[in-house]
Amino acid sequence: MTLLVALTWDPKPWVDRFELHLPEYPVAVLGNEFDRSAVRYVATWGPKPGSLSDLPALEAIFSLGAGVDHLMGYPNLPDVPIVRVSQDDLTHRMSEYVVMHCLLHLRDQRRYDAAQRAKQWDADRTPPIAGDVRVGVMGFGVLGQDAARKLQLMGFDVAGWSRTPKTVQGFEIFSGPEGLEKFLARTDILVSLMPLTPETRGILNASLFAKLARDGQLGGPILINVGRGGLQVESDILAALDRGILKAATLDVFQVEPLPTDSPLWTHPRVTVTPHNSAVSDPDKTARYIAQQIRRHEAGEPFQNIVERSRGY
Amino acid sequence: MTLLVALTWDPKPWVDRFELHLPEYPVAVLGNEFDRSAVRYVATWGPKPGSLSDLPALEAIFSLGAGVDHLMGYPNLPDVPIVRVSQDDLTHRMSEYVVMHCLLHLRDQRRYDAAQRAKQWDADRTPPIAGDVRVGVMGFGVLGQDAARKLQLMGFDVAGWSRTPKTVQGFEIFSGPEGLEKFLARTDILVSLMPLTPETRGILNASLFAKLARDGQLGGPILINVGRGGLQVESDILAALDRGILKAATLDVFQVEPLPTDSPLWTHPRVTVTPHNSAVSDPDKTARYIAQQIRRHEAGEPFQNIVERSRGY
Repeated sequence: MTLLVALTWDPKPWVDRFELHLPEYPVAVLGNEFDRSAVRYVATWGPKPGSLSDLPALEAIFSLGAGVDHLMGYPNLPDVPIVRVSQDDLTHRMSEYVVMHCLLHLRDQRRYDAAQRAKQWDADRTPPIAGDVRVGVMGFGVLGQDAARKLQLMGFDVAGWSRTPKTVQGFEIFSGPEGLEKFLARTDILVSLMPLTPETRGILNASLFAKLARDGQLGGPILINVGRGGLQVESDILAALDRGILKAATLDVFQVEPLPTDSPLWTHPRVTVTPHNSAVSDPDKTARYIAQQIRRHEAGEPFQNIVERSRGY
Repeated sequence: MTLLVALTWDPKPWVDRFELHLPEYPVAVLGNEFDRSAVRYVATWGPKPGSLSDLPALEAIFSLGAGVDHLMGYPNLPDVPIVRVSQDDLTHRMSEYVVMHCLLHLRDQRRYDAAQRAKQWDADRTPPIAGDVRVGVMGFGVLGQDAARKLQLMGFDVAGWSRTPKTVQGFEIFSGPEGLEKFLARTDILVSLMPLTPETRGILNASLFAKLARDGQLGGPILINVGRGGLQVESDILAALDRGILKAATLDVFQVEPLPTDSPLWTHPRVTVTPHNSAVSDPDKTARYIAQQIRRHEAGEPFQNIVERSRGY
């Protein structure tokens, strides 16, 4: 029996952590020689076509990150449970990112950054407080709910949007296409935390931006996308910024990653670019989580956080 | 009876708001003609010497901001209650500032800002989470406690330091000179929210910086000063940054304000300068608060938030 690590980046920190937290399991690395018939589990992110085939003893695939869209389009994906890694520290990091960037927009900190570069004492303004600003969290799963709760604790007026009707105490949650317009009409800062599915691909486009609130306290609606780059139409974001439909955008994900050097997003004065690091999986904590799931499974208990293939997340 | 507005900046927004929320009181403005014997209340910030003398009917002075150090050195300060304006929205703004800047340091966002300017996709790092970082809030009054509570809700490991022993549920609070060393030794991010008094002047100096924790997750201790510029020795901050005693500093207040153009703080790569706007007093909400206090007083109830002159805040 073997755990196969199938990554497109340096697997060493992951192998080390699996050997530490799951010492009973030999670890194989895709690219090296290993016995395919011994592989019982795969830990992967963005596996290359073919790398998951011909594993007759496979019992589960662990996805090393919050989303599983990297697996959903995989040809001949083995018919075993796909387990999402959703450990607390990834959730914390995501909420820290979302709260920080909402506060940066609330306080117009980028204006102060520019003033500092120009050595200007730009003091004559009273920013709104969080309670004056409506944040809309689109995608209200584990990550969306944690971010929403922390935004609310900081004082923001938070609502959610979910594909299917959902009840979470303390939040107004809109749902479905019919709830989307109302949700957008009360949103000053849109936080996108949706999974990437055929339904959500390209959903952050000109038509959606035009429906965001125009009567807010921030001088125009703001987009924060921390879901997947495939959710957004970057040419529409740039056009909306230049036409005043969007005031600013914070993007952690892109249609092509790494973001190509010639993308105008890098240098747009009202765009913040971060390198898809809003919620990095920590190898140590992730390996611990997977070890725990494997031990549950081998003790006859079900895996937690199994992906529902029909909906794609 | 008159309310006198004594400001060193444009009084118009304040006068408008007092006329709105306290229509029964004529408003006089320092600099214009007015009947000194009719002045019952003064609303002021940084009054010029002489401007508060010869007001025989004076009953109280309202300080338009969180601190009162601008009054404590005032020659022949009239012997009437000094009422601190401590309304909620100033407290909210301060906490928003403090949480935002702690998160910026937690996530090393300035590094990503620099990477964006260089069009570099700088992805290979796993930042600590808030729970790995110890914030020390120095000055644990209304503002300090609200900031501490919100930092804790975001996950930070928060303790406080106070001049006198204090108990606030959920926090370890160190006090006095004897508690200071222990407090500093467990502090990765120091948030200064102290009042400026003869005891605290220059307290943020080389000797204090040397006592901050050196075993933290952020690569060195960080200073955030949102109290008063007189608390800090700017030459010591610069030297500590250059010697690696401090990793970074976020300063909203300065020994001389506006910060002089030739200050090296403007351009230091690890210093964030903001123009003393962490917690701006909103004229509308402040005028409402003062109107409420005046009505309390005239109904025979005591003022709230009276300054204790002997301790200086």
